[in-house]
Amino acid sequence: MEIAYKLYYWPLPFRGAFIQLLLEHAGAEYQLASGEETSAFKNSDAAIQGIPAMAPPFLKDCANGTYIAQMPAIMIYLSERLGYLPSGPYKRALVLKTLLDCNDFLSDLTNANGSKMWEHEQWIAFRADRLKKWMRIFEATGERNGLQADAGFLLNPDQESCADIAVTALFGTMCRCLPQLHNDFKATAPKIEALVARIESDPIVRDFIKRQEAETGQLYCGGQIERSIRDMLARDEILSSEG
Amino acid sequence: MEIAYKLYYWPLPFRGAFIQLLLEHAGAEYQLASGEETSAFKNSDAAIQGIPAMAPPFLKDCANGTYIAQMPAIMIYLSERLGYLPSGPYKRALVLKTLLDCNDFLSDLTNANGSKMWEHEQWIAFRADRLKKWMRIFEATGERNGLQADAGFLLNPDQESCADIAVTALFGTMCRCLPQLHNDFKATAPKIEALVARIESDPIVRDFIKRQEAETGQLYCGGQIERSIRDMLARDEILSSEG
Repeated sequence: MEIAYKLYYWPLPFRGAFIQLLLEHAGAEYQLASGEETSAFKNSDAAIQGIPAMAPPFLKDCANGTYIAQMPAIMIYLSERLGYLPSGPYKRALVLKTLLDCNDFLSDLTNANGSKMWEHEQWIAFRADRLKKWMRIFEATGERNGLQADAGFLLNPDQESCADIAVTALFGTMCRCLPQLHNDFKATAPKIEALVARIESDPIVRDFIKRQEAETGQLYCGGQIERSIRDMLARDEILSSEG
Repeated sequence: MEIAYKLYYWPLPFRGAFIQLLLEHAGAEYQLASGEETSAFKNSDAAIQGIPAMAPPFLKDCANGTYIAQMPAIMIYLSERLGYLPSGPYKRALVLKTLLDCNDFLSDLTNANGSKMWEHEQWIAFRADRLKKWMRIFEATGERNGLQADAGFLLNPDQESCADIAVTALFGTMCRCLPQLHNDFKATAPKIEALVARIESDPIVRDFIKRQEAETGQLYCGGQIERSIRDMLARDEILSSEG
């Protein structure tokens, strides 16, 4: 099969995992750009970039040579092509709102995309409050749309959408790479946790996660901020074993 | 006319101005929730919110009693109804990408949505580099799509879209509330600056901006971070008068 898409991202999951999981789930043929290619794209002047944009992910649609940037915009663009958008403008707006929530969650978990390192007191407050509030937002969204512990999807009782891929890329990746957070997730958003497990049990998804793990291990968002998150989680464990 | 939409936001422009400008431009009837109503919505548990969501803006579509959250999702939802989305999936993806760029620009200008106050050295680097890079991204986007100094729009030479409303809400509001940044904008993105001026010269838009100014003056994003930005701009002026 011909390569249909080329994805430019760093060699780690984080925001790139959303797009890869959608492409894998849909069985689309795609190529991953190298870190060097991604870096060169990002650092080029806007006037000569494939698309004028600040940061990866970037996607090339090889069929027509066009580019798109911004994770939620790439997801909507691909979903339209690959049949992952529900019908009706309101449901489609909810898909987009879910993608934006995922993006904000990633930003919050990494302390504004790594703009500063976590301090433990601030992290403790985040883990007890805002992290849980995010999880309740996803859980309540599912509950309103008919999600049950053993059946259903985030926005429709009987139809998978881009939103289900997104929550799997968000929480599945988080629990795989930062397993200390799995209990927080399961306790706060049990129906979403079960939804993610159902999607991950699909053989295609399971195979993709295995390859991902073989390639990048437990690497999550990379950089100093990943070390900071892991440091916070380790301190939490010490505190809890002392308590 | 009946109220078609109700917008929940703080009594200041920032992200709310995008949605208000679109509603005003389209001549839609809408109501602004009070700060107290917005605060009550935001602080309710996800299970009882109009829509489970972290932060305003929220929009109620009064015709069917549904709610939507996240500025870019609200803009796309309204644009579909009000005729501000271009045709074709690629152009629509570019509209969404532009909205996400606007959202990221606001986050960057406010130092990750006010998560910390500006330090002057860091601000100087931001103003010289990343702020300009954002402006070049918008300028290059317009240039590729046929924008000229005296004609055209951001994504189409002959058709206004949600993206034009968004850049006007972004840069028009910034220049009105933080006029010290107008020269940075005009020097770096002259075609976008002219586009914003053309859209602002529309009598409906001019009238809206006058009312906005009468109601909230030069208030921009509010809070400590607005004071921090104004402090940075004042220090820049002192440095430049000394230099």
